[in-house]
Amino acid sequence: MSPGPNNAITDVGEVRVGHVTLCSGREIRTGVTVILPHPGNLFREKVVAAVHVINAFGKVAGTTQVEELGVLETPIALTNTLSVGVAWNGLVEHALRVTPSLTSVNPLVGECNDSYLNDIRSRHVKPEHVLEAIDVAASGPVPEGVVGAGTGMTCYGWKGGIGTASRRTPAALGGYTLGALALANFGDPADLRIGGVSVGASLLPPPPAEAASGGSCVVVLATDAPASSRQLGRIARRVQNGLAWTGTFGGHRSGEYVFAFSTARTVPDRQAQPSLPVRELAEDGPAIEALFRATAEATEEAVINALFTARTVEGVDGHIQYELPVDEVLSLLQRTQERQ
Amino acid sequence: MSPGPNNAITDVGEVRVGHVTLCSGREIRTGVTVILPHPGNLFREKVVAAVHVINAFGKVAGTTQVEELGVLETPIALTNTLSVGVAWNGLVEHALRVTPSLTSVNPLVGECNDSYLNDIRSRHVKPEHVLEAIDVAASGPVPEGVVGAGTGMTCYGWKGGIGTASRRTPAALGGYTLGALALANFGDPADLRIGGVSVGASLLPPPPAEAASGGSCVVVLATDAPASSRQLGRIARRVQNGLAWTGTFGGHRSGEYVFAFSTARTVPDRQAQPSLPVRELAEDGPAIEALFRATAEATEEAVINALFTARTVEGVDGHIQYELPVDEVLSLLQRTQERQ
Amino acid sequence: MSPGPNNAITDVGEVRVGHVTLCSGREIRTGVTVILPHPGNLFREKVVAAVHVINAFGKVAGTTQVEELGVLETPIALTNTLSVGVAWNGLVEHALRVTPSLTSVNPLVGECNDSYLNDIRSRHVKPEHVLEAIDVAASGPVPEGVVGAGTGMTCYGWKGGIGTASRRTPAALGGYTLGALALANFGDPADLRIGGVSVGASLLPPPPAEAASGGSCVVVLATDAPASSRQLGRIARRVQNGLAWTGTFGGHRSGEYVFAFSTARTVPDRQAQPSLPVRELAEDGPAIEALFRATAEATEEAVINALFTARTVEGVDGHIQYELPVDEVLSLLQRTQERQ
Amino acid sequence: MSPGPNNAITDVGEVRVGHVTLCSGREIRTGVTVILPHPGNLFREKVVAAVHVINAFGKVAGTTQVEELGVLETPIALTNTLSVGVAWNGLVEHALRVTPSLTSVNPLVGECNDSYLNDIRSRHVKPEHVLEAIDVAASGPVPEGVVGAGTGMTCYGWKGGIGTASRRTPAALGGYTLGALALANFGDPADLRIGGVSVGASLLPPPPAEAASGGSCVVVLATDAPASSRQLGRIARRVQNGLAWTGTFGGHRSGEYVFAFSTARTVPDRQAQPSLPVRELAEDGPAIEALFRATAEATEEAVINALFTARTVEGVDGHIQYELPVDEVLSLLQRTQERQ
Repeated sequence: MSPGPNNAITDVGEVRVGHVTLCSGREIRTGVTVILPHPGNLFREKVVAAVHVINAFGKVAGTTQVEELGVLETPIALTNTLSVGVAWNGLVEHALRVTPSLTSVNPLVGECNDSYLNDIRSRHVKPEHVLEAIDVAASGPVPEGVVGAGTGMTCYGWKGGIGTASRRTPAALGGYTLGALALANFGDPADLRIGGVSVGASLLPPPPAEAASGGSCVVVLATDAPASSRQLGRIARRVQNGLAWTGTFGGHRSGEYVFAFSTARTVPDRQAQPSLPVRELAEDGPAIEALFRATAEATEEAVINALFTARTVEGVDGHIQYELPVDEVLSLLQRTQERQ
Repeated sequence: MSPGPNNAITDVGEVRVGHVTLCSGREIRTGVTVILPHPGNLFREKVVAAVHVINAFGKVAGTTQVEELGVLETPIALTNTLSVGVAWNGLVEHALRVTPSLTSVNPLVGECNDSYLNDIRSRHVKPEHVLEAIDVAASGPVPEGVVGAGTGMTCYGWKGGIGTASRRTPAALGGYTLGALALANFGDPADLRIGGVSVGASLLPPPPAEAASGGSCVVVLATDAPASSRQLGRIARRVQNGLAWTGTFGGHRSGEYVFAFSTARTVPDRQAQPSLPVRELAEDGPAIEALFRATAEATEEAVINALFTARTVEGVDGHIQYELPVDEVLSLLQRTQERQ
Repeated sequence: MSPGPNNAITDVGEVRVGHVTLCSGREIRTGVTVILPHPGNLFREKVVAAVHVINAFGKVAGTTQVEELGVLETPIALTNTLSVGVAWNGLVEHALRVTPSLTSVNPLVGECNDSYLNDIRSRHVKPEHVLEAIDVAASGPVPEGVVGAGTGMTCYGWKGGIGTASRRTPAALGGYTLGALALANFGDPADLRIGGVSVGASLLPPPPAEAASGGSCVVVLATDAPASSRQLGRIARRVQNGLAWTGTFGGHRSGEYVFAFSTARTVPDRQAQPSLPVRELAEDGPAIEALFRATAEATEEAVINALFTARTVEGVDGHIQYELPVDEVLSLLQRTQERQ
Repeated sequence: MSPGPNNAITDVGEVRVGHVTLCSGREIRTGVTVILPHPGNLFREKVVAAVHVINAFGKVAGTTQVEELGVLETPIALTNTLSVGVAWNGLVEHALRVTPSLTSVNPLVGECNDSYLNDIRSRHVKPEHVLEAIDVAASGPVPEGVVGAGTGMTCYGWKGGIGTASRRTPAALGGYTLGALALANFGDPADLRIGGVSVGASLLPPPPAEAASGGSCVVVLATDAPASSRQLGRIARRVQNGLAWTGTFGGHRSGEYVFAFSTARTVPDRQAQPSLPVRELAEDGPAIEALFRATAEATEEAVINALFTARTVEGVDGHIQYELPVDEVLSLLQRTQERQ
């Protein structure tokens, strides 16, 4: 399937992505990434949403209400493990500013652990960084690699971070766009596969100075298909296939979560009428299956894009996470493909 | 809230209920009850549906696909614990007859254990009984008490069985009807409450000849509100409140399941277009809340109606299950209400 | 069933409860309540735990990891809706202080909305309040009513707040203790039932000055029974019965969550051996069923205790939430019981 | 990781597998496969178990009780889509025979759709076939390919069926064995990957005479690790990675279920004591992670083994499903590996 114009989650509707990268001194290697389903007031104009948990060894906030009500009412914030509460506060601060009468709101926050490169215990992320990330959020091309929440992340032993990709389904199947954004911080080095090729069998990163604590991956999915929350849940469950295609078996400490939303319509905060007309994605034509395939493909590529765009980073305690040697990988892939 | 014209699940749309009662000799006290969301071909014209599990110490078939796809594609069959497979076969037989090309279908079956009165091990229920129950299914008033799947059931130590009730929400909240049908076979005698009054504290049934095996309760909900499968799941979760109002704390062996569907629209088996227009119940007006209250009320009354309509039954091994002494109960309720 | 010595969650093992009550000026009516499964380092010595969601229209953090791994590794914090992130930060701060090498931890936070009495938008709760609540947490009798997280809460239209109760199972069934602590902030006034008596039918609070936003209820369960996380989940599901016994049908906006843990053993952070010996609660004797009944009873009483102990509070915008007129209620209950 | 002696699910404890293959005339191409956790009375001596649903477009019976109680109390039966009820009846018949007093039992049945090769509507499977499969169930090598429930199945457009594999974890991590048995009936031909190599890109089966209805995959996992039901659920979730490694993105109509059990101990039907001593797999050492990897690997290989062992079958309506051309595949794999 072919990608959208930016091969990014921003190919979907009016989705915006904002990064704040905190990289200073020898020990601050962290940040915040926010994803905005649309540029308006999300509390007043919610979007249909779902959460899928692959492996809940990870900290999140806000998932249960999304599952109950099937809507998202704030931007999604991604950050490091010990900053979930801070990001939550930032999203609340934002909601209070844009909605004067608001007394209740459900922020959605995901995280990965960047403690190998970042002095995570000092908690350098502040609520202001979330507000700033929302402010700078933009449509169009999305910066990838060592940026935002991805600043201090590690993937298959190489420098990881933020990656994104998108896919378009055929016009006859709705011509929908599906985008994935991954905060990629997972995987055992020897397991890495790219395009099916077992890169990890030939090419390993230098061993870490000491064992890192866990991994994790948060994948945000956006689509303009008019999927219900139940259908978004089904779509979200195909992220695991995309992650598996990069080689992972799903580590014990790798917290893996999917947050999915549709931009096809907004759901008003209060509804005067007992019912309302909506469009719903057909369940039993091939339209939804095309979105399943799009999800697995975009997820796989988002992770690989994180690896391809991330640069070597030195961080706390002199720890270094090396970038994937892209040229070597490309020649390995080329050799393999030539002979198949 | 006020009930519909029949105070029964058949007050909803074109819902039909059919019973086949197997009561012969000294040991056959069982049967089948089917609920048809509409009289047409359910496989071709499915209905939106949900399942909620309160306590899964109970045997069911078909729940997972209903949860995945959000639709029901056969009638619902209720029977005894060891006849789930037979009822499943009966529903398949029916589906094959009405849909010549069909090679896959997902029957939905629930059960309770009637082994105190019924020679359950001899498995007297046959697939033909399911077909017959579908044939005789009718709209209008629903026979309650010792009938269909309820023939051999016990509730709070008294003779239980089938009960039903309905509620209508105010016109301004949609004017929807919600009906509940309970296969009531649960509860400790001392716990029975009717209208809040602790009947079980004053009035106990004769002790059983030997301990019965488990209890259970299956509640089927129907509504003409255009609820999505997610919303039907939320509605279904209020059944537990209605059951609790009859006094139960939720016994370990009391398998409690809810099957809920909406008659507001049908979902075609195959969908040519990538999306389709539908109406959806408003989430955040009071319309859905009225359905929650309707659910708890109709569930409570369905159970009480089962108790009020069931007559004393003698069954296998000379076991007798006595009917609730309705006159005594009514005077107890009256005395209590007078003095409040 | 009979209560423990304090009729409180602190009757279980070494459980401690700490409140910080923020009540000053005309507009601050809020606070924090923490529950400590034991006084040691919870990250190093976790406890077996489970979460059950009754209605997820409510904000929580930390539930998914508890469900995945079956353990709790921080105190539980309860606070107001807009302070979940702050409480999360407080729990992280505490974890970092007591565990120097920690770089990842999963705080568990629940909330209810106190915006009718409290200027919730100004977010007066600070991380320090969580640390203070942990510091002052004590075993023995638990302050109830207008205290801690319960300071600004409302229940069935009367002043609500914190309530607790406990039950002991018979010695032959293990002689286990189960305690419940409720943050009670839910219910429609006309629905209130106490001991089965429909108090709300006779006795209504003055109508509120304006519609309050939502309700909610968080119930924390503790037991010394050696329940597995799966079994704790089963126990937790009986909270809904206890809540229903107080009259509620389960409102749309009433976020209802249960956090349950066992003090029977601790789970070390790192385990050197591939397996370890543990004791597990029998599933199919009556021991677990006694805990189910204890749960429903203790939950019901915890809510009623919150109503009985809470005093009238005036708060933001001159809003007043009146205390339940206990003498009137008691005479109503007495009249009803005499005549049954 | 290395396989056990038979590279089969029977490498685990006393696990037995039995097939009944129904292959006669031009139109009967179906069967039954049963998996016995041990040769004793499973109702009296249950095993710890879990179910995981990847995509519930599939019919099963018995999953909810396994999830609630965490035990399996019958053999597992696999068969075709329209025979779930029949298999259920066969398992009940077996349970009644071996346990004279039994009046309630929870059979566990999974299915895939073999209607492309098999005259599924005529329902040739009978309860006797389940009893026979239990009778012939054996330890040791497991017949694979066109056998038992796999007789009429299709996988990635080639002839599929039954496959099995096992893995042993290192002695320091418990030295546990994990076995997988797959009923493989899923996948788009172009997606097939073997050992990472995109076989489907080079080698496609002849196109089918007409579109087949759906696919599906049921994977049964057995391990001698003393995993709790929650831990077995975690293990089961890694099956999706193993399936994804064979190339699939997870089709809409591909019902994918995992049934997992542990042979480490048995759980008696009735328990006289309130609690009992058990061993439990360590959660946070590497022991559980080794089982995760074992699961993904054994699942992948079980599917590939089904493809490698299945022979070409002609069935109903002259439909032919061709066997994978193993020699061509092996040379393709060899060429690719040489050049990496």
